[in-house]
Amino acid sequence: MSAESVVPLAVFNRLPLYLRSLQAMRAEGIATISSVALAEAVALNPSVVKKDLSFVIVNVGKPKVGYVINDLIEDIEEFLGYNNTKDAVLVGMGKLGQALMGYHGFEKYGLNIIGGFDVDEAIFNKKINGKKIMPLDKMASAVKKLQIKIAILTLPQEHAQEVTDLLVQAGIQAIWNFTPAHIKAPDNVVIKNEDLAASMALLSLQLRQVLQNERN
Amino acid sequence: MSAESVVPLAVFNRLPLYLRSLQAMRAEGIATISSVALAEAVALNPSVVKKDLSFVIVNVGKPKVGYVINDLIEDIEEFLGYNNTKDAVLVGMGKLGQALMGYHGFEKYGLNIIGGFDVDEAIFNKKINGKKIMPLDKMASAVKKLQIKIAILTLPQEHAQEVTDLLVQAGIQAIWNFTPAHIKAPDNVVIKNEDLAASMALLSLQLRQVLQNERN
Repeated sequence: MSAESVVPLAVFNRLPLYLRSLQAMRAEGIATISSVALAEAVALNPSVVKKDLSFVIVNVGKPKVGYVINDLIEDIEEFLGYNNTKDAVLVGMGKLGQALMGYHGFEKYGLNIIGGFDVDEAIFNKKINGKKIMPLDKMASAVKKLQIKIAILTLPQEHAQEVTDLLVQAGIQAIWNFTPAHIKAPDNVVIKNEDLAASMALLSLQLRQVLQNERN
Repeated sequence: MSAESVVPLAVFNRLPLYLRSLQAMRAEGIATISSVALAEAVALNPSVVKKDLSFVIVNVGKPKVGYVINDLIEDIEEFLGYNNTKDAVLVGMGKLGQALMGYHGFEKYGLNIIGGFDVDEAIFNKKINGKKIMPLDKMASAVKKLQIKIAILTLPQEHAQEVTDLLVQAGIQAIWNFTPAHIKAPDNVVIKNEDLAASMALLSLQLRQVLQNERN
């Protein structure tokens, strides 16, 4: 199950209800539940619940026992993209942003840049490597809708913090920061600073050591 | 002393002679030498030797004792760029190459990309961040002339090894490899592989751990 388009929007709206209810049950030590009991807990018709969950379920429930709560929680979270650790957005589509967008190699780790955002109208809708550059003001809604958790910052450093705040508000939980800015984010957001200059400085240092060894 | 243009080319050609002679003396345990004795060792006129070394000397010699051999060797090596660990060339001026050429931040470590090389005639002489894109067939001579020791590879991976061989032959001793190619070089060449996809994969893994902790 993955084709978002065939699943009615109402299902997406009800799934978080089931999820909260199931998490409460699990917290009470309940391991399995019938569709009828779940329907009662969320005050919906059992046939609606059954149909909704049929879009979601990967871990098939045992018909006699009902749904295994752990499995069902996992399936709903997966379906809602709560564990989306593969998709990323790029912010700042200058040379470095475009270079990363065109970089083949992310695929081998199953990673996927879904698109890039910028404020420069001249490059809106430009496609690189099949991915589109979109206006920055569409960023937050796209991140929310697609449940993106990873953002890559390749924008001018003076806008890094402001954009980080917007991203975190939209649900981003991992930031790969190519700017020299020291960005701040809540504790549950992973920040990876990529300081290319420091990388080259390290190489330069290693080179110095090699040259010294050669001459001594 | 640094303005290469004011130093006659003949001086550059004689300096390696002095250097070899001085290294031989140092190996014999000699600590100081007069300009006359050095001139004799290299079979040149003492006034030529004095004048040549005046371009080079940073560590002032003690007039009575002559030159301190260790200091003089250091000054000549520095002058000839034998310890040039600051300058680098870029090879492959696609988006990533151009992004690195335009990257401000290397300066803070005193690092300097002197220019980039490519085979695409359309971008020859294009300047980015004040640095020029030059034809690939000028690469080896530029590296030799400027005593560059660091090269950054941002070219298509299928040419990475071939270009590495040319660079090493021209004197490159440190390679920052942004291609996915597994390049080979002699043991005295430092290779730093920059796998951006692996960096992002690591971030994705950290994110997964954060998400798991949040839900458990």
